[in-house]
Amino acid sequence: MSVTVPHGFLAAGVACGIKPSGVEDLALVTAVEPAVASAVFTVNRAAAAPVRLSREHLGAGPTARAFVVNSGCANAATGERGEVAARAMAVRTASAIGCAPSDVLVASTGTIGSHLPVDLVMRGIDAAAGTVSAGHAADAGAARAIMTTDTVPKMASASIGGVSVGGIAKGAGMVRPDMATMIVALTTDAVVSPGDLDIALRAAVDDSFHALNIDGCPSTNDTVVVLASGASGTRLASSDLAPLLSSVCRELAHQLAEDAEGASRVVTIDVTGAADDGEARALGRSIGDSALVRSAFHGGDPNWGRIVGALGAASVPVNLDSVRIDFAGVTVAYDGVASEFDEDALVEALAKGDFTVAVDLNQGPGAATVLTTDLTPDYVRFNSERS
Amino acid sequence: MSVTVPHGFLAAGVACGIKPSGVEDLALVTAVEPAVASAVFTVNRAAAAPVRLSREHLGAGPTARAFVVNSGCANAATGERGEVAARAMAVRTASAIGCAPSDVLVASTGTIGSHLPVDLVMRGIDAAAGTVSAGHAADAGAARAIMTTDTVPKMASASIGGVSVGGIAKGAGMVRPDMATMIVALTTDAVVSPGDLDIALRAAVDDSFHALNIDGCPSTNDTVVVLASGASGTRLASSDLAPLLSSVCRELAHQLAEDAEGASRVVTIDVTGAADDGEARALGRSIGDSALVRSAFHGGDPNWGRIVGALGAASVPVNLDSVRIDFAGVTVAYDGVASEFDEDALVEALAKGDFTVAVDLNQGPGAATVLTTDLTPDYVRFNSERS
Repeated sequence: MSVTVPHGFLAAGVACGIKPSGVEDLALVTAVEPAVASAVFTVNRAAAAPVRLSREHLGAGPTARAFVVNSGCANAATGERGEVAARAMAVRTASAIGCAPSDVLVASTGTIGSHLPVDLVMRGIDAAAGTVSAGHAADAGAARAIMTTDTVPKMASASIGGVSVGGIAKGAGMVRPDMATMIVALTTDAVVSPGDLDIALRAAVDDSFHALNIDGCPSTNDTVVVLASGASGTRLASSDLAPLLSSVCRELAHQLAEDAEGASRVVTIDVTGAADDGEARALGRSIGDSALVRSAFHGGDPNWGRIVGALGAASVPVNLDSVRIDFAGVTVAYDGVASEFDEDALVEALAKGDFTVAVDLNQGPGAATVLTTDLTPDYVRFNSERS
Repeated sequence: MSVTVPHGFLAAGVACGIKPSGVEDLALVTAVEPAVASAVFTVNRAAAAPVRLSREHLGAGPTARAFVVNSGCANAATGERGEVAARAMAVRTASAIGCAPSDVLVASTGTIGSHLPVDLVMRGIDAAAGTVSAGHAADAGAARAIMTTDTVPKMASASIGGVSVGGIAKGAGMVRPDMATMIVALTTDAVVSPGDLDIALRAAVDDSFHALNIDGCPSTNDTVVVLASGASGTRLASSDLAPLLSSVCRELAHQLAEDAEGASRVVTIDVTGAADDGEARALGRSIGDSALVRSAFHGGDPNWGRIVGALGAASVPVNLDSVRIDFAGVTVAYDGVASEFDEDALVEALAKGDFTVAVDLNQGPGAATVLTTDLTPDYVRFNSERS
């Protein structure tokens, strides 16, 4: 159960024929009444046509009736023709459900540089609009329809005090950029102002998807959309909505990490003692960006020298004289120098699977958690194959 | 022939016992008379003790009589004890050759976090100071003594109009950070002012080592030192010295790329048409930083979508609507969208080994060349092993 858990939303996933295999490749999430909308898009300057169009539509007003997503083709690096195709998706969805095109948000995911088969997508939109419903089958269909190289659909929901949040997600960074991107659709039935929804979404994304680092490259198509129907009748401020949104986003982020291609383990990087939370996050990301650190994670090697190297190379100034580094609860470095520990026992513990690396800078109240995966020969092999 | 090609320099490489294998692990380059000196150090904030000490010594005055380097131990993340050890290396070298400690520059390379065996290093410095000489054997001994996981010593020299430049190098970024770093020793017999030497060195390094991107992480110990003896009697301005220094540095950078661990090919990224050279370099580095692009290089896949993704994710603003991308001289994208080309023929051409990727942004006069290597399963395997 996911996007139709909150009241006021319907969903569908259909196979429109973009993917030759005949699996679902077009998802539609609709709000029965106009919903308050917000979104976070990729920072990549080569943003795909659907990203540029959705930005334009949100710029025209913070409401939406629908979020339509196709997989199998990113509609990125497609020039003028790609822009026309994205616009056609919005117009067709609008006429199928009866709203203005600017109340439709659009996303695409799949191969960069190839053109969308517009006729197939138009028929798919009609089919999806005719079959949207609420319930597990609809939610799962939509979650499957946005998958590319994902091996399982990702869904999550949470409810508290009569208000619900639901979401579906696919991809994990540019796990396989020709065929991937991160797309997330979130819904809530909270009554919330556009400004509060926006603040809550950004806080939740910072806490979850922005803390997930598989290969350090924002794709051309990354999109997180949230629609708020207000159907619960319960008004929430951003500070009340953010934790609920966060819990769903964190669950989805964890599902993305677990399903990341070529990864054999999820490593949680807990940074504490930084000047502030932003610096803690930047330091955590620098660790998760390092191919050398992630290669050592693959070998279950408590190689704290590489962690120090990655911290020193981060974009924020940091004093490493008082840093403490723990692997799986075992202190391997203290006050910036090597600690005594039972290396064989620790290596045995790390061999078991997922683990946590804790970095305490001992300099301030800042803290952040970053999720990453190990870098494996399989990852390289997978990404070196021609698609 | 390398550092003793320019007049006024002597060199030696000795085995002092840091490395259990008994190979050379301490190099000494001395100037017969006080030489003008400049250096470029790592930007990593976790700079090792020898880096901090050499900065201090250059700060005291832009001259030096010696550059002493040990391999087998980075003396990084070693706290107060590491600082004492680095200082001892300078003091012992100074007393062995008869100069002030502040006229000795120091570098170390090897495992991060372990302590230098100071007694062994002191005996090694005495031995090296007693055997320094000019000629091929001395140059090769010094080049071998700074190697860590390098498989071959790296040496280069160039002469023009009676002025020579020579150099030795080791490592390639943090190719294996526990056992690596980039250390370069350059010598010249040009007569040059400290300011001009500094300008020429920075230009040469920007053009060569800063354009080499193996895994995107500056190590804790990276050091490039240049000593100018003036023994040729020929005075050079920075603009005359820079090209000569550059040619030696580029040759050494290419040798580093060829010897990078786990790499199966060197890929040259030529960026043109950027707003200025700095932007061109930043864009080239963003391509060379991408694990996804470098995985595709491994497979010989002309995957221009990943190049577009990396360009859009770079730190400089860029318009990709007019970008042209060539792999091995074949245009695969034009005006930001896919081009027609014979993919099978291109893939066959790429399979042969090293190749060039040309990116033309068609927006300005800025140009830069970046060298990188492919990312291979061997790289990950090598870097996931416990050292």
